[in-house]
Amino acid sequence: MSDIPARIHIVEEGPREGFQAEPPGVPTAEKIRLIETLAATGVPEIDCASFVNPKVLPQMADALGIAEGIRREQGVTYSCMWLNDKGFLQAVESGLNLPALTSGSASDTFLERNNRRTPEAQLEGQRKLRALYDAHGLGSGPVYLFTAFGCNYEGEIPQEKVLARAADLVGLCEEAGSPPACIYLCDTIGAADPGLVRRLVGAVRDRWPDYPVALHLHDTRGLGIANAMAGLELGVARFDASVGGLGGCPFAGNPAAAGNIATEELALLCERMGIETGIDLGALIDAARLAEEIVGRSLPGKLSKAGVFNPRR
Amino acid sequence: MSDIPARIHIVEEGPREGFQAEPPGVPTAEKIRLIETLAATGVPEIDCASFVNPKVLPQMADALGIAEGIRREQGVTYSCMWLNDKGFLQAVESGLNLPALTSGSASDTFLERNNRRTPEAQLEGQRKLRALYDAHGLGSGPVYLFTAFGCNYEGEIPQEKVLARAADLVGLCEEAGSPPACIYLCDTIGAADPGLVRRLVGAVRDRWPDYPVALHLHDTRGLGIANAMAGLELGVARFDASVGGLGGCPFAGNPAAAGNIATEELALLCERMGIETGIDLGALIDAARLAEEIVGRSLPGKLSKAGVFNPRR
Repeated sequence: MSDIPARIHIVEEGPREGFQAEPPGVPTAEKIRLIETLAATGVPEIDCASFVNPKVLPQMADALGIAEGIRREQGVTYSCMWLNDKGFLQAVESGLNLPALTSGSASDTFLERNNRRTPEAQLEGQRKLRALYDAHGLGSGPVYLFTAFGCNYEGEIPQEKVLARAADLVGLCEEAGSPPACIYLCDTIGAADPGLVRRLVGAVRDRWPDYPVALHLHDTRGLGIANAMAGLELGVARFDASVGGLGGCPFAGNPAAAGNIATEELALLCERMGIETGIDLGALIDAARLAEEIVGRSLPGKLSKAGVFNPRR
Repeated sequence: MSDIPARIHIVEEGPREGFQAEPPGVPTAEKIRLIETLAATGVPEIDCASFVNPKVLPQMADALGIAEGIRREQGVTYSCMWLNDKGFLQAVESGLNLPALTSGSASDTFLERNNRRTPEAQLEGQRKLRALYDAHGLGSGPVYLFTAFGCNYEGEIPQEKVLARAADLVGLCEEAGSPPACIYLCDTIGAADPGLVRRLVGAVRDRWPDYPVALHLHDTRGLGIANAMAGLELGVARFDASVGGLGGCPFAGNPAAAGNIATEELALLCERMGIETGIDLGALIDAARLAEEIVGRSLPGKLSKAGVFNPRR
C-alpha cells in the first residue's frame, strides 16, 4: 500500500479512441470543442486524433482539421496516434505533439485480425517508424503492448509470451538508442482483474526495473476501476482514460469495443486516495456531460450523472 | 491481502431494491420470473419484496402476490423487507424467509427525510420490532446502518457519530438477547471509496470483533467494484448486490438513486480472486439480460453486454 504515487499522469483518450469508436459524422467543430473543454480541466495530455487510412477509419478523416482548429492551452500536451510511416508523416505536418510510440500485440491472432500483420511484419514496421522518429529528432517514447491481459481469440496469453512480445518492442527501442519512456500494458478487450494486474505489472517490473509501467484499461466487464486501483497501489503513475467512458458502444451491438475507464472516475479515485492528477473534477464532469451531448446518448460513466459528493456540508 | 475469504454470501437485491426504484407497473409475473431465474443461478439469497405502505411505494403493492407465486428452489433463501410492525406481520403471512432486521441511519437528516423519524423514534420502532421478532421465535438478524459512508444532506458523517448510531442498534439487539448476526454498513448514496471502506470496516471490527461486517454498496459514482474489492481484501464475506445493477435510474432524472453494484460483476471479481460464491456466472448473466428485458432498457452492468471472457481457448 505504501507504493501509492504522489501524482499520476493521465492521458485523455476520449477525442481519439472515443470518437474513433463512434459512428462517423461527429462534426470536427464538436471534437475541437470537447478537446478545448478537456484542456481547461487540468488534464495534462489529450490524445486528439489518429492519422490512419480514412477509408478504414472515416471517423478520423478530419484529423488534420482537428489539429489546425484547436486553440492551445499552455502546459497541455496535444498528442496523436498513427500506425505506419505515412500516418506519422501526416502527424508531423499536423503540428500536434508526437509521442514516439512503438506498438505490438501479445496476441498474434489479434495483431493479424486488427492490423493485418504477422508479429515479424509488425516489428519490421515499428523498426522503420523508429528510424523515422530518429530522423525527426524524436527521443524515447512509450511502448504499447496490446491484449496484454488476454484476447478474445486466444484467451489468456501465457505470461512468458506476453513478456517475449514486450521484449521484442523494448529491444527494438533499446537497440535504436531510445529506451522506452514507459511500457503500456493494454487491456484491449477488458480481460484483466486486479490479481492479473498485480502479477503482470510485477513481472514486467522485475524484467525492466528502469522503465515505468503504464496502464491502458478498458471497462468491458465492469472491473476497470478495481484494476486501476490495483495499479495505483503498485505505484503505476501513468494511465490512459476516456472522458465519460467514451468509446463504449454497448447499444451498437459491439460490446467488445467498450471504452476506457472513465477519466473522471479515475480522477475521483485518485482524489480519494490522496493522489494528485492536476484535474478539476467538477470541470471534468462538465466535459463528460458535453461528450454525452455531442454523441447524443448516455455514456457509461456514472459520476457525471450523480455529481461530486461533497463530504463537507 | 491474506484476509480474503474462501467464500462469500451474496444477497441478490434486484427484485426488491431494484424493482422498488423502477416506475410502478412491472407485472408480478415478470418479477416472479426474474426471481425464479435468479434462484437457478446458485445465488444463495434473494430479497424478493418489501412489505411497505402501497400508497408510498406502489411498486411493492404486489409483495404478497410475489411471495405466493414463487416456485421455491431448495437451498435458496427468499427474503423480504419491512419498515414497521404492520409490514412485518404481512411478511409473516407471506411465508417468505424473515431476516430479523434492525435498521437505522448514520445521518439523522437522511432518517428524517427518508423515514420521517427522529433517531429516538427510529430506535423505539426497532425495539418494538425486536419484541415482535421474539414473539415470533426469530433469533438474531442483520443490523443495517444506512448512510454509513456519507449522506447527501450531511456530507461525510464523522466516524464517532457512525459508530454511535451503530452502537444504538447493536445495543438494542444485545439487550434483547439476540446479538447481531452481522452489521451491514450501507453506502446508501454511493459516497464511499476504498480507503473509507477500510477505515470504517476496521473501526467497526475493532469495536465489535465478534460481529461480522457486511457491505451494501451502491455504484453511484463508479467506485462500487473498487469498494467491494477493498471489502473482500479485508475479509468481508457478505455483500448485497443487484443483478445488472438494477435499481439505478440515471435516465429518470434521479441519479442519486443509482443501483447496487452489479451482482454478476461482483461474482466475476470473486471468481478471479478465487473466492467461491456458489454462482454460475453464465446463468447470472442471462438473468441480467432478462432483467433488462423486463425493464425495457439497458442496465448499468457491463459484463452482461460483453459476456464472460474465457481465459482458456
